[in-house]
Amino acid sequence: MAPVTNGRLLFTEIPTGYPEPGKTTVYDTSQTIDLENVPLDGGVLIKTLVLSSDPYLRGRMRDAKIKTYSVAFQLGEPIDNHGVGVVLRSEDPAFKEGDHVSSHKLPFQHYSVFKKEELGTLQVLKNEYKNLPWSVYIGVCGMPGATAYMGWKEYAHPKKGEVAYVTAGSGAVGGLVIQLAKADGLKVIASAGSDKKVAYLRELGADVAFNYKTVPVNKVLQKEGPIDIYWDNVGGESFEAAITAANRLARFIECGTISGYNTQTPYHVKNLGLIVGKELQISGFIVGSLYAKYEEQFHKEIPKGVASGEIKYSEDVTKGLENAGEAILDVQLGRNNGKKIIRVANE
Amino acid sequence: MAPVTNGRLLFTEIPTGYPEPGKTTVYDTSQTIDLENVPLDGGVLIKTLVLSSDPYLRGRMRDAKIKTYSVAFQLGEPIDNHGVGVVLRSEDPAFKEGDHVSSHKLPFQHYSVFKKEELGTLQVLKNEYKNLPWSVYIGVCGMPGATAYMGWKEYAHPKKGEVAYVTAGSGAVGGLVIQLAKADGLKVIASAGSDKKVAYLRELGADVAFNYKTVPVNKVLQKEGPIDIYWDNVGGESFEAAITAANRLARFIECGTISGYNTQTPYHVKNLGLIVGKELQISGFIVGSLYAKYEEQFHKEIPKGVASGEIKYSEDVTKGLENAGEAILDVQLGRNNGKKIIRVANE
Repeated sequence: MAPVTNGRLLFTEIPTGYPEPGKTTVYDTSQTIDLENVPLDGGVLIKTLVLSSDPYLRGRMRDAKIKTYSVAFQLGEPIDNHGVGVVLRSEDPAFKEGDHVSSHKLPFQHYSVFKKEELGTLQVLKNEYKNLPWSVYIGVCGMPGATAYMGWKEYAHPKKGEVAYVTAGSGAVGGLVIQLAKADGLKVIASAGSDKKVAYLRELGADVAFNYKTVPVNKVLQKEGPIDIYWDNVGGESFEAAITAANRLARFIECGTISGYNTQTPYHVKNLGLIVGKELQISGFIVGSLYAKYEEQFHKEIPKGVASGEIKYSEDVTKGLENAGEAILDVQLGRNNGKKIIRVANE
Repeated sequence: MAPVTNGRLLFTEIPTGYPEPGKTTVYDTSQTIDLENVPLDGGVLIKTLVLSSDPYLRGRMRDAKIKTYSVAFQLGEPIDNHGVGVVLRSEDPAFKEGDHVSSHKLPFQHYSVFKKEELGTLQVLKNEYKNLPWSVYIGVCGMPGATAYMGWKEYAHPKKGEVAYVTAGSGAVGGLVIQLAKADGLKVIASAGSDKKVAYLRELGADVAFNYKTVPVNKVLQKEGPIDIYWDNVGGESFEAAITAANRLARFIECGTISGYNTQTPYHVKNLGLIVGKELQISGFIVGSLYAKYEEQFHKEIPKGVASGEIKYSEDVTKGLENAGEAILDVQLGRNNGKKIIRVANE
């Protein structure tokens, strides 16, 4: 078989504001790959099926000299993220042709060779629940679901009857948080950025759901709060409103601050002084730190609940790797409805 | 005996910036009291000996309609705070003439009647350690000491060899925090607002001590950090610098934010987004919430350590209740050297 084009999404320029498809990322078709003969060096050849577009990717689009918890993308190289692929060829007995694998560093390209020393980044998916699409393993049963589940278990300390406020409630993380909070017997206030999303928040069980673009957050929290738990995916003005509406000893779970990702001038939070008097407990976290403690119970509970329909999720699909730059921007702008996935190829 | 003047410090106006002695508080001598005949209604008559000037008093100088953790002062009435007095007369068997008592709500006046139903706010001081002055019970052995001790025990989670940064290190709270951190085997960076105070920080054992008014905090923390524990008495720019210098999973103990107490325009902390990526654990606290858990061990350990000289403390005395308004302002401006006490009367 002749070599085939191996399209890739390259990181080409560090954005100052929002990422710009075609400028900060470029879809490149200059490379080819010989699928039958490309050397594997004891590794495997993967065909990419689905890739994830997550809010945190914006933080990786930075100057590599700035060190943070996440690895910066390399200019001129394909970006990478959580994804699912299928094994086309293997030289390692742990991986068989046709196996489905997930990886937290799957390159944004159609085909990838994982060398022997890189095989630790691949996990064979068993998919015990045949009715689940592979894409759930980059969504509700993958990193975003784990973020919601593990962050909630570690930091929420919910007591029945308390009030939780969940931001970006229609996203992959927020959507599961709402359901976990309801399962724990809480009153849940949830926000999102469109009326369509707000309808979905109600489907997920939120007691109070509102569009933060048309209804002032402060007004809702004043009426429906005070709040005992704040799940923060947003930061900035929303963080400030949550402080104002917080009960004594409220727990703030700081998962993300997307309101500040695409600007050089972060919002001025003016009420930080209340952290002391309200005895707020504010926990920043990265899900990677919680896997050791919660991975087993996450894998036991969540896929089962999703397969039975007890746990709801929604996906928003972008078709084609050539549109992945747009899919990344969609998430930064909140234009997605549910977990944004990029369908790169069918089986 | 004829009635005597009962001087009082009245709260007369809500300050917008710093409190102004003679304006926001006024020393009033219009009242008299007949010490022998004033009715006690089953209570006690107390002569005030020492009163405490604490940073948090500024927060009580507010519109009483605004509810926070602390009780607002009433306009036209004497302010109150932690203090020590001596019992002149008693109609309750639990208090004897000559007993020394501490109270967390001793009025800023020379003589006070505590009625039967108010006796719960008085504690008889045993003073097992005869070399200690009564004033320590409003300082290192009182509320400020308890704040340092209990906040540290609850939230610091120190590991030997870690780095702590303590602000307002020469104050009543910060001074004990430095010593607790050293006892736990930490490297301690401490700051204060004058060279004299900085010399005292070194006496307390701080490994790195600096005057934040002449040396940029960021520069010191960049050189001597990163930090694992941040004891915040200051907030604002200092909080921002601590976030920048924080290690992954650093603990921020939010005890006070004096930089924001006397201004209507709080500092713009611009790096709150790092709370997530650095997995910061930020705990606001009020010592009152920790007494139940730590009071016994505090009373067992701290007075003993102070009496033996193992625990150091320093006091800055203002003489005369007529100067108490100035003593309150001193603490807001950081003009005190060590725990500010107001000596109202001798025995």
